[in-house]
Amino acid sequence: MPVNRTARLKRRPKGQIARDIFDFRDEPLADPGEGQFRVRAEYVSLDPAMRGWMSEGRSYVRPVELGEVMRAYSVGRIDASRHREFKEGDAVVGLFGVQSYAISDGRGVIRADTSLAPLPTWLGGLGMPGLTAYFGLLEVASPKSGDTVVVSAASGAVGQVVGQIARLQGCRAVGIAGGPEKCNFITSEIGFDAAVDYKAGRLAENLKSACPDGIDVDFENVGGEIFDTVLSQMNPFGRVAVCGLISGYGAAEPPPGPRNIRMVLVMRLRVQGFIVFDFAERYGEALADLGRWHQEGRVKFREDVREGGIDAFPETLNLLYTGGNFGKLVLKL
Amino acid sequence: MPVNRTARLKRRPKGQIARDIFDFRDEPLADPGEGQFRVRAEYVSLDPAMRGWMSEGRSYVRPVELGEVMRAYSVGRIDASRHREFKEGDAVVGLFGVQSYAISDGRGVIRADTSLAPLPTWLGGLGMPGLTAYFGLLEVASPKSGDTVVVSAASGAVGQVVGQIARLQGCRAVGIAGGPEKCNFITSEIGFDAAVDYKAGRLAENLKSACPDGIDVDFENVGGEIFDTVLSQMNPFGRVAVCGLISGYGAAEPPPGPRNIRMVLVMRLRVQGFIVFDFAERYGEALADLGRWHQEGRVKFREDVREGGIDAFPETLNLLYTGGNFGKLVLKL
Repeated sequence: MPVNRTARLKRRPKGQIARDIFDFRDEPLADPGEGQFRVRAEYVSLDPAMRGWMSEGRSYVRPVELGEVMRAYSVGRIDASRHREFKEGDAVVGLFGVQSYAISDGRGVIRADTSLAPLPTWLGGLGMPGLTAYFGLLEVASPKSGDTVVVSAASGAVGQVVGQIARLQGCRAVGIAGGPEKCNFITSEIGFDAAVDYKAGRLAENLKSACPDGIDVDFENVGGEIFDTVLSQMNPFGRVAVCGLISGYGAAEPPPGPRNIRMVLVMRLRVQGFIVFDFAERYGEALADLGRWHQEGRVKFREDVREGGIDAFPETLNLLYTGGNFGKLVLKL
Repeated sequence: MPVNRTARLKRRPKGQIARDIFDFRDEPLADPGEGQFRVRAEYVSLDPAMRGWMSEGRSYVRPVELGEVMRAYSVGRIDASRHREFKEGDAVVGLFGVQSYAISDGRGVIRADTSLAPLPTWLGGLGMPGLTAYFGLLEVASPKSGDTVVVSAASGAVGQVVGQIARLQGCRAVGIAGGPEKCNFITSEIGFDAAVDYKAGRLAENLKSACPDGIDVDFENVGGEIFDTVLSQMNPFGRVAVCGLISGYGAAEPPPGPRNIRMVLVMRLRVQGFIVFDFAERYGEALADLGRWHQEGRVKFREDVREGGIDAFPETLNLLYTGGNFGKLVLKL
C-alpha cells in the first residue's frame, strides 16, 4: 500500500536548519474529492525563501504553522483526479508541500510541458526561479543595452537565468559565484561575460576588473559583504533589484546592513525589493518567453538533483545557505 | 576701503569641522569684468552637504580644492555690474562661496524676489532646501493621498517643507525631531499631523503610535538608528527617498548600514537616492508652486539666522551635525 511520507514543521529554526525541527511521518493516502486531484510528487524544490517561511515575524506570506506540512513547490504527475481540467497522468507544478502525495483543487497549479523541458526544469528555469529572474531583471532593474549587470549567487537557480536574460538585452553580464567550477560554468557554458570568485579573496579588485566601466544593475541574491562591495562600484542612477539576502538568513540577529548605503544617495541609486508573487498575473507571458528562449538554445538551465527522498529534506536545504548546491537544487523522491 | 573676507579650505575635515581647517583672510575686492557682476553677500547658507563637499572621494560634485574658497550658497545684492541682465541693486542667490563678495557671470544664479519673501528664505524654503523637499517628495517618493509620510530632521530646512507639501497632497505628515520645542513647532505652527521626539527614547513605540497604519513614505534625512526604526515600520510597496544621511557625516569610517535592510525585500520597498541638481531644468516650475503656496499661507518657512560673519562659519556649520539649529540655518554677514 502506498503511503504519504510527510515532513511537518515541529519547531521554528534557529541558525542552521536542524533535522529535528521536522516530524517525518507515513500518513494514509487521501483520495481527491469532487473538483480535486491527487499528485504523486517526483521532485521537491528547495528554495532560499523557505527559511523565511518557517520563521515567525513580518513577511510577505504567512509563516508555516507548527504541525503543518512544510511549504514547498514540487512537480509530479496526477495519479487520481475528480477535476474537470486536470487529468490522470498530467504533469503539474504547485505548492504541494514536502510530501510524496498532495491533494489540490488546481488553484495556482501550472502544467509542466515535458516536451519542452524535463520535470526538474519546471521547478527551476521554467519555474519560480526563472520567473523571479525574469521579472526582477526586466521589470525591477530595467536594464538598458550596454549596461553592466552584476548578479550574485550567479550559478544558482535564479542567478544563472538573470545573466542569460541580461545578455539577451545587450548587457554585459558579470556573475559572482563561489569557486572555479561555478565561475567556469557561468562563463564557458551559459555565456556570462565575466565571473568573479568570491572565495578567491580580493573581491573588490576582481569585481573592478570584471566591471571596468562600473556597475549599472545589481541583481542582489546574497547581501552582506558581497552586496556592500557591489554597492561601492555602482554607477550614477544604477538600479539594485533586491531578490534575496541569503547571507543573513541563518542569523539569529539581523546582520549589519550595507555600510555603503551612502552610495544610494551619492549615486542616486534605486534599490527595490520584489517578490515574484506580485507578478502572478503575468506568469504566462514570462513562461512563453523563457520557454521560447530555452527551445532556441539561447537560455540554458542547470539543475542540481539530490537523492534521498522526503527524509533528506533538511540536509539538502542547508546546502543552499552554504553555497553547497550547483544550479537549481531539487530533491528527487 | 571694503575688503573681501574669505574662508578658504586649508585641510580636509576629520570628524567634526575644526576651525583650523580654514584660512580666514581679507582679500582685495575684485571688479567685475565684461559680462560679470559683483555680489555683496548678506546671508550665507549652511547645508549638511558641505561635509561631503570638503571631503575627497567619490561624490556627485567635485570636492572643494585645498586653497579654494569654501563652496556655499549665499544671497545678497549686486553692488557693481557689467552684465546685461543683472543690474546693481538686484537681489540674487547663487553658489557664491563663503566670502563677503563674489564675482559671477550669472550662470546658475536665481533672482530673489524680496516682495515674495525676505532674503534668508531664498536660501531655505524658496532655495535649494525647498527645491530638495519638492522634488524628493513629489518625484522620488510619489506620495498618494492617504499615505502616511514620515520625515526625519523634520524642523530642518528640508524636513519642514516636506511635511507641509505632504499635507497638501492629502497625506498624513509625521515628523521626527529632537526635543519638545521642535516637535511643538512642526505640529502647532506648520501643521504636521504628529511629531516624534527622538530624544525622548522609545522611538519605535512612539513612531508606531504616530503611524498607526504603518509608513508608506519615508523622506530620509538622517540615517542610522532613526532610519532603521522607520524601515521596520514600512508598509508593503513603501517608498524611501534618500535625501541625506547626516548622522554618519562626521564619522571617519562608514557607520553600520541599516540592519532592517531585509524590509526592502519583504515589503518590496523602493529606496531611491536623489540630488536636487538632477532636477535643475525644473526649478522654475517648483519655485512657482512653492512661491504660490507660501503667498497663500499654505506653506511656511522658518529660518535660524546666526550672527558672527564669515569667521563664525565653522562653529555655525557644526550646529547642523548636532541638531543645534532650529529651521534653515543661515549666517548673517
